[in-house]
Amino acid sequence: MPTHRLVRFGVSIDADLLRAFDKFIDHAGYGTRSEAFRDLMRARLVEERIQDPDAEAFGVLTLVYNHHQRDLEEKLTDVQHHAHHQIISTTHVHLDHDNCMEVILLRGTVGTVRSLATALASFKGVKHSNISLTSISDFA
Amino acid sequence: MPTHRLVRFGVSIDADLLRAFDKFIDHAGYGTRSEAFRDLMRARLVEERIQDPDAEAFGVLTLVYNHHQRDLEEKLTDVQHHAHHQIISTTHVHLDHDNCMEVILLRGTVGTVRSLATALASFKGVKHSNISLTSISDFA
Amino acid sequence: MPTHRLVRFGVSIDADLLRAFDKFIDHAGYGTRSEAFRDLMRARLVEERIQDPDAEAFGVLTLVYNHHQRDLEEKLTDVQHHAHHQIISTTHVHLDHDNCMEVILLRGTVGTVRSLATALASFKGVKHSNISLTSISDFA
Amino acid sequence: MPTHRLVRFGVSIDADLLRAFDKFIDHAGYGTRSEAFRDLMRARLVEERIQDPDAEAFGVLTLVYNHHQRDLEEKLTDVQHHAHHQIISTTHVHLDHDNCMEVILLRGTVGTVRSLATALASFKGVKHSNISLTSISDFA
Repeated sequence: MPTHRLVRFGVSIDADLLRAFDKFIDHAGYGTRSEAFRDLMRARLVEERIQDPDAEAFGVLTLVYNHHQRDLEEKLTDVQHHAHHQIISTTHVHLDHDNCMEVILLRGTVGTVRSLATALASFKGVKHSNISLTSISDFA
Repeated sequence: MPTHRLVRFGVSIDADLLRAFDKFIDHAGYGTRSEAFRDLMRARLVEERIQDPDAEAFGVLTLVYNHHQRDLEEKLTDVQHHAHHQIISTTHVHLDHDNCMEVILLRGTVGTVRSLATALASFKGVKHSNISLTSISDFA
Repeated sequence: MPTHRLVRFGVSIDADLLRAFDKFIDHAGYGTRSEAFRDLMRARLVEERIQDPDAEAFGVLTLVYNHHQRDLEEKLTDVQHHAHHQIISTTHVHLDHDNCMEVILLRGTVGTVRSLATALASFKGVKHSNISLTSISDFA
Repeated sequence: MPTHRLVRFGVSIDADLLRAFDKFIDHAGYGTRSEAFRDLMRARLVEERIQDPDAEAFGVLTLVYNHHQRDLEEKLTDVQHHAHHQIISTTHVHLDHDNCMEVILLRGTVGTVRSLATALASFKGVKHSNISLTSISDFA
């Protein structure tokens, strides 16, 4: 269980690098350097963790598909029901007359989440897909 | 408006490359080569389009944050209301006692979607964020 | 050993997708669709292969560093000599008065190449690094 | 011209995040937290800069190709000569009986470097290509 206790320590950074970074912080809307560092640290750690197929992760799978494609919606629903322990929720958007976007929230090990995403994304009629993984843990 | 008319044509591929690709197709669960090509073509075109800040796009923004962070939920909601024309919907997941995941579906130009995502992701208390962009068009 | 025999077969693609792809092919300078497909297929297979730590790969490691950094060049050279079986060659560019770029060509398993790249990139004084992996095999 | 003056300042980081990050630092071989932060900061700034087509950049282009491909070497050499102001150097590796790897170091604006890389990578016979961009500036 995270303690949310702050630790304060000093860092030494080249003046020019720091000046450029402060400009970026300002542009990106961060309040303080510590906040920006916190984000960089977390992003780097998450990047490391999701290399490990056994790490616990959350996935956000985006599918764009044509809902006229015969049997596609049935197949997508079917796979999701079989994997209902891994599926948190699904949001459906009607993009235009023909196209749907479905955003499926998944949880499980990095390995399971990736397999499930590949299974859903490779059905005939799925036009575009994207999986993004995140991971929480003691540091999150 | 897409016509959904299929065009058939021939391609010449090196036998060894084709053999390796057929193995991949099989492993990835595609039914036919045409389906696999279709996906590769679309992914490549989407990749091109989202380089253009003026192209129309859909974004899926994932935020992980600590809901105990003072004022964070108010700020996130506030920004989303100001940009309500760009926000399609928001799905909220309670990850554990402290952490939330919010998946926000955005639409607009690549430029607007990216700016909005950066604004939301840089609030103090947001621990991890990811934006994935897609684009539909005549080819989608 | 690759045979370089061409196999010809038909694919069926949606007319609108094909039109958009043909525009891309033209813009990217490909002579024929087959050439563009060949590239997409290879890129996808390489992407798969370099997920496997045991696959044979080639790496191109780019390091930017300040040559005034005490002992850095000695350390970089030292590590490279210890790993000389993995190092193919090194190209050195004098970027400006202070900065050098070193491009190191590596070979070995994906796992070894990645470790070696991390070791070299994490020395004090290395300002920026990038590793790109490729893999050849029967399909290459 | 960079001054290489170090600035020392304090940051406040959540104890759990810091513990996880220290483990990563140790694993990745960094000597101090400041060094790890420096790398994260630089990587983030470079990532920002190479979004800008007009920013000055260095590119490392890797091409894998079959040297039996008719006229390919002539074409690659020809394009490189026409763009000799953008080409720093080229390293050639004989991968096996059929395959070559050519690593071409480029300099120019992000836009020029990308165009030149695309031109070289799309010749018939180029089997795989990768471009990685970096950028130096006052912060480098």
